[in-house]
Amino acid sequence: MEDDIIYRKLRLILIGFGVIGQSLTKLLLSKSADLYNIYGIKPRIVACIDNKGAAISSSGLDLERLLNIKKSKGTVARYSDKKVAMNSLEIIENTEAEIVLELTPTNLENAEPGLSHLISAMRSGKHIITANKGPLSLALPSLLELADYNGIMFRFSGTVGGGTPILEYAKHCLKGDRIISFRGILNGTTNYILSKMETGLDFKQALSDAQKNGYAEAKPSLDVDGYDAAAKLVIMANWIMGMKVTMKNVNMFGISKITLDDINKAKNKKCAIKLIASCENKVLEVKPIEIDINDPICVDGTLNAVKFTLEHAGEQTIIGKGAGGIETASAVLRDMIEIRDNIINKI
Amino acid sequence: MEDDIIYRKLRLILIGFGVIGQSLTKLLLSKSADLYNIYGIKPRIVACIDNKGAAISSSGLDLERLLNIKKSKGTVARYSDKKVAMNSLEIIENTEAEIVLELTPTNLENAEPGLSHLISAMRSGKHIITANKGPLSLALPSLLELADYNGIMFRFSGTVGGGTPILEYAKHCLKGDRIISFRGILNGTTNYILSKMETGLDFKQALSDAQKNGYAEAKPSLDVDGYDAAAKLVIMANWIMGMKVTMKNVNMFGISKITLDDINKAKNKKCAIKLIASCENKVLEVKPIEIDINDPICVDGTLNAVKFTLEHAGEQTIIGKGAGGIETASAVLRDMIEIRDNIINKI
Repeated sequence: MEDDIIYRKLRLILIGFGVIGQSLTKLLLSKSADLYNIYGIKPRIVACIDNKGAAISSSGLDLERLLNIKKSKGTVARYSDKKVAMNSLEIIENTEAEIVLELTPTNLENAEPGLSHLISAMRSGKHIITANKGPLSLALPSLLELADYNGIMFRFSGTVGGGTPILEYAKHCLKGDRIISFRGILNGTTNYILSKMETGLDFKQALSDAQKNGYAEAKPSLDVDGYDAAAKLVIMANWIMGMKVTMKNVNMFGISKITLDDINKAKNKKCAIKLIASCENKVLEVKPIEIDINDPICVDGTLNAVKFTLEHAGEQTIIGKGAGGIETASAVLRDMIEIRDNIINKI
Repeated sequence: MEDDIIYRKLRLILIGFGVIGQSLTKLLLSKSADLYNIYGIKPRIVACIDNKGAAISSSGLDLERLLNIKKSKGTVARYSDKKVAMNSLEIIENTEAEIVLELTPTNLENAEPGLSHLISAMRSGKHIITANKGPLSLALPSLLELADYNGIMFRFSGTVGGGTPILEYAKHCLKGDRIISFRGILNGTTNYILSKMETGLDFKQALSDAQKNGYAEAKPSLDVDGYDAAAKLVIMANWIMGMKVTMKNVNMFGISKITLDDINKAKNKKCAIKLIASCENKVLEVKPIEIDINDPICVDGTLNAVKFTLEHAGEQTIIGKGAGGIETASAVLRDMIEIRDNIINKI
């Protein structure tokens, strides 16, 4: 019983209840038996915040009810009749919890409100898991220092590769070896557009196709101009290579000027044009370049692919879906299990 | 100082001093500063055994001298003037060490001498790292039980994928998710032969080319008839899927009957014939089949590739070199760091 109290208590503050937050909640529901039996955890969401308000319960919110309320009323604020008076920063600071999950949408301009959420969580000594690229791409070096200073664990697997464990792979699977450089396709939208252009559509047609299929936003600049890939590159460079860099350190070129003529010229050389993010000789770059069609990173559609070059084991490539609600939620869950394992090892 | 004694002591018994054993020794030499500074270990080889004899030193053998003696005299037995009187099993049982490295060549018929080495090591309470597929493919379920019974750690990353961390990926990077099935190319030799056939060589010509380039043995049956891929499949099924299986549970078909006509028929369907090892619905199979050329596992040359299908995160593929002395040695080193981390966590 005491075991239960010490080891299994995992109280979560969930901030952001969009696709990823809701997918995570569904995962916690559907996998609760596995989480307890295999990993020994019983996570409870003690506070859930969306852009219209919050729901709070120190004994844990009812997850089915939370999902239903969000669906029927549009906000978790309607979970209880009594309105929660605190704002999100006050909730983070004043609610007892082990982990803050920051899952609000990425904002690459000023990183808010995510950045303030992260800083509040760190200051109040709570571990953090985020899938929000904004704060990381603009301030990861400082955030890592702040996390270290406050003695908290800070994880963000879901920011790169969706559910594909690119960050963990580099950190956990390559011990004893050394990553010299890496390059790859980190943005599924532009890869979809470029793959469509291979079939004869021009850039505008391919973009419009991507928009119709829900792969591109109405304002597609974040993807097609390279910002999203650059943000992920920055995260990888900090976490994997120990570089202290932000978005301004990336040489960035988008794909909007790629023509069918460029595509066909590449094809004649048995190549395809791909938007490649690379970290080579400490230089960070996002740029459309010709890739040999036999290169393992030359994948089609919305796939992501990263190739690591190692000192001893040579080149290794990981390929997987780079986005998706349930996929990204699975990365958040993985981070949660890792943090909990580390908490136990420290006891 | 006491820290040094408790944490850093890592005495190794190295059995088998061929390409992998020598590559590992070179790695220990070249990376000794990193191993101490980054991972906090100072490995010492206290016994080294090859097929003609042994060298022993409780304070640690001089690694440069060991490599030179092997090169100039053909056996480590000449390391000292005094011949070591014990045989390999006696050395394993009577030498104080934390880890036994079993790196003798794979024997898929009766798994010896590797199997006896492993059993001796387990009985004498030593942790084990091996790159030898023989004992694992024939008796992994029993060996895992025996390891558990004796409370020792048993690792074999180098048996699958060379330096590509396929086993670790499945075990460490996919926590919280569930692997439903996997399939891939686990043998580089047959993949090289099939890739050569794509260029117009028939099977015999492609095999002869592979032999000339050192990718295939004079007696190529182990590779071309599927035994090597089947052995790796068995190891993955036990370790990743928790199945209790050995070689006899694999439906195995080789590539020696593949004709240029088969290759061309596949090509017309935008496919390539690959020797695919698969674990699907608990059925284990090694068989040449047609793979879509856009499938991420459709890699060329001596590369290996494995695709995992996950419950939540979809399909994920890892690609890398599947063999090589230094690559496999890097996997052995990775296992060593993991075992040492676990020893410390248990203190």
